[in-house]
Amino acid sequence: MKVESNISAPTKFIQVGKESYAYRRFGTGSGLPLLFLQHFTGTLDNWDPAVTDPLAAGREVILFESAGVGRSSGEVPKTIVGMAKHALTFLDGLDLKSCDVLGFSLGGMVAQKMALERPSIFRRIILVGTAPRGGEDIMHLEKPSLAKHLNDPKLQGYAVLQKIFFAPTASSQAAGEAFIGRLLQRKDDREPVSGPEVAIAQIAAFRERERVTGERFTYLKSVRQPTLVVNGIHDEMISVSNSYRLAENLPNAVLLVYPDSGHGSLFQFHESFTRQVGSFLAANSASATY
Amino acid sequence: MKVESNISAPTKFIQVGKESYAYRRFGTGSGLPLLFLQHFTGTLDNWDPAVTDPLAAGREVILFESAGVGRSSGEVPKTIVGMAKHALTFLDGLDLKSCDVLGFSLGGMVAQKMALERPSIFRRIILVGTAPRGGEDIMHLEKPSLAKHLNDPKLQGYAVLQKIFFAPTASSQAAGEAFIGRLLQRKDDREPVSGPEVAIAQIAAFRERERVTGERFTYLKSVRQPTLVVNGIHDEMISVSNSYRLAENLPNAVLLVYPDSGHGSLFQFHESFTRQVGSFLAANSASATY
Repeated sequence: MKVESNISAPTKFIQVGKESYAYRRFGTGSGLPLLFLQHFTGTLDNWDPAVTDPLAAGREVILFESAGVGRSSGEVPKTIVGMAKHALTFLDGLDLKSCDVLGFSLGGMVAQKMALERPSIFRRIILVGTAPRGGEDIMHLEKPSLAKHLNDPKLQGYAVLQKIFFAPTASSQAAGEAFIGRLLQRKDDREPVSGPEVAIAQIAAFRERERVTGERFTYLKSVRQPTLVVNGIHDEMISVSNSYRLAENLPNAVLLVYPDSGHGSLFQFHESFTRQVGSFLAANSASATY
Repeated sequence: MKVESNISAPTKFIQVGKESYAYRRFGTGSGLPLLFLQHFTGTLDNWDPAVTDPLAAGREVILFESAGVGRSSGEVPKTIVGMAKHALTFLDGLDLKSCDVLGFSLGGMVAQKMALERPSIFRRIILVGTAPRGGEDIMHLEKPSLAKHLNDPKLQGYAVLQKIFFAPTASSQAAGEAFIGRLLQRKDDREPVSGPEVAIAQIAAFRERERVTGERFTYLKSVRQPTLVVNGIHDEMISVSNSYRLAENLPNAVLLVYPDSGHGSLFQFHESFTRQVGSFLAANSASATY
């Protein structure tokens, strides 16, 4: 049997309306398809095969590249609303009426907006290292703990990710090094790396996200799906307090927080993460508990 | 095969030094024994068989009754330190050099102190609905959300527990009713219910616990065991913020928070809780992740 993996899965393209979206779709099993929504500046190549592949053993996984990122056409929206619209258009293009979703960081914000816009689109929701509207300490790349790495000329490409996605401990940094190694396993059919225009638009979306509109966090009461909220306890990019607020205000969310880890806790603890997510997705009750 | 259960397990007594401690010990399997440390005013009869029994299928469980509670002799200590001393004396009496521990509420504070006093005593630690030293919103029975139930003459005995251990939703209250039903399944060999002298001494221990000594939460860095911190998101008795502080300051703790539940989340979601705890205890790595 062919092992399906993000190391080798071909990049596909689908034209919907005026855009051509890049995506990868692989895996098999009885589970509902699982949509992956990506982080700040990330492309399809930023999905760790140690996370995608075990989950693809029980269902199809669909990695989506939003407009203006990688080989997807169009402009990067400057709002979460705009990104959610692209993702829904993409799912319509695939004629997918319902799926599960794993939104990481920026992708978790897009997932929340999609669930509000079209509640029937998701059965179960996984939100990792992300924040509600009106959250705090969301992607402030200018703060010293992040800026010192982002402005370090010795750190190029993935080496920066190792620093900012993982905690400053030997164990977390070693996990970061292993993560980078896994991302580099894919040799062919890779996406172009995001340039500054992607970063600038997405940062604008983060800034807009921090603004409170109406009563803080109240909109989360409308997200009724069973939800699993996951974070690393020492996340410098999007503070874990945002995951606390998600769990406190979503009506049906389990919160799982990992020790000794930062924004990339799902990659650091990929064995535990894929096991927990697998159990969460396998559950078919109305409750998020598993 | 006889099913071992807290519904039927005989209460045992062990004399160590000048005290006679009541306890129950049942279950079998390859796991290390699991010590249960009880909540405010709780006796051996307050352990939900839906929590103890599934865990007793993989190991011995040991339910401990501290000095001055139920049929244990002696005075109730007014400090966590004093309670931890009794629990260590009890384990010495059983000649148990190492075990796992599940400390709920007050019991979780005692477990922390025991781990500091004698690090070798615990392999893995489960802390449910509890708080660190210097935590906030710990067992303020005078606050309106609790006092309205505690002072309600219509609520007698276990009916109060249903109100204060469970969230004010139909689903959580129904789980509370089921919990009370399970506690009443044990007909014989029951413990005397705690009187006001137990409550007064234990409340003194809570008040002492809120005081900050030295740098806040720093002592938790010394608790090196893999730890699982569990809470209900709407815990009115010991606010979930205390579980956040535990996870942020313990070096090796996974945090698991349940939706739609209060102090008694472990009883409300007993199936999920015993499954998660079973997986956590089955892990043998240095990491708390499972």
